[in-house]
Amino acid sequence: MTAKAEKTLNTLFYDTLKDVYYAEKKILKALPKMAKAAQSAELTKAFEKHEEETEGQIERLEQVFEIIGKRPQGKTCPAIDGIIEEGQEIMEDYRDAAALDAGLLAAAQAVEHYEISRYGTLKRWAGVLGMKDAAKLLDETLKQESKTDESLTKLADAQVNEKALKKAA
Amino acid sequence: MTAKAEKTLNTLFYDTLKDVYYAEKKILKALPKMAKAAQSAELTKAFEKHEEETEGQIERLEQVFEIIGKRPQGKTCPAIDGIIEEGQEIMEDYRDAAALDAGLLAAAQAVEHYEISRYGTLKRWAGVLGMKDAAKLLDETLKQESKTDESLTKLADAQVNEKALKKAA
Repeated sequence: MTAKAEKTLNTLFYDTLKDVYYAEKKILKALPKMAKAAQSAELTKAFEKHEEETEGQIERLEQVFEIIGKRPQGKTCPAIDGIIEEGQEIMEDYRDAAALDAGLLAAAQAVEHYEISRYGTLKRWAGVLGMKDAAKLLDETLKQESKTDESLTKLADAQVNEKALKKAA
Repeated sequence: MTAKAEKTLNTLFYDTLKDVYYAEKKILKALPKMAKAAQSAELTKAFEKHEEETEGQIERLEQVFEIIGKRPQGKTCPAIDGIIEEGQEIMEDYRDAAALDAGLLAAAQAVEHYEISRYGTLKRWAGVLGMKDAAKLLDETLKQESKTDESLTKLADAQVNEKALKKAA
């Protein structure tokens, strides 16, 4: 155990890296379920695409663990557990409902925003700690998450939200 | 109970409104604890300012409930429960540590991003549902949350992260 007074930004960076590693692995498990549940082919495709991206994001996190000389490992992250639980509730409560896809898409955006917040923080900390390569890797994922969030908003505007207005047949 | 096939965007909007109402009330309780725990006067001030803003955000949500003709009520939101739990872990694990404020600030940004995601979604849904006044109220809060997130990033860059590098005395 690190004594509390010794807990500097290095400790916090490592703790948060483990938190995000756990989160990404959890997201990787949730995405195929969300892809399967989605009613529209476009939303299924968006989730499948993000599943692939998530695999790459996990690899980048593993590279960051290597940079700091640690073995990649996760640490339970109650935030992502709760966010994913909300997505599961939508899948159950809105199964076969007109608004299912709108709810799933919103749940996915809550996931994206959690990641945007965490990668934004980690990238800045890596910069302050002088770890240029780690900062670059984290920034790459940050940009990908922001782009995914924007694509989901576009998909919501283009069709998902309008469709949710209509009662299911 | 609403039959599943009848669950349209109106139902989802109402469910999500209750989710965010619960979240804001929970945030309102967490902020004074975070303000008290913060080491730097600037971070304490930022949390106190956001506490005031949160009160206004709760009032705006109550106006939206009124617009849809429902009594304001919360619905347990596992996402915010998890996000706030992480903030509490930081307060315990990093008490008296050099990186406490950096961790608290990051936890607050995770909260902001959850809210940004939810208000962004609710605002769009209100628009699709033709509720202009509700959309305007939700957008007002969305802009405030984004501004708070930016201010926190500035505070992190200006002093909190650098301070976290140093071992506590």
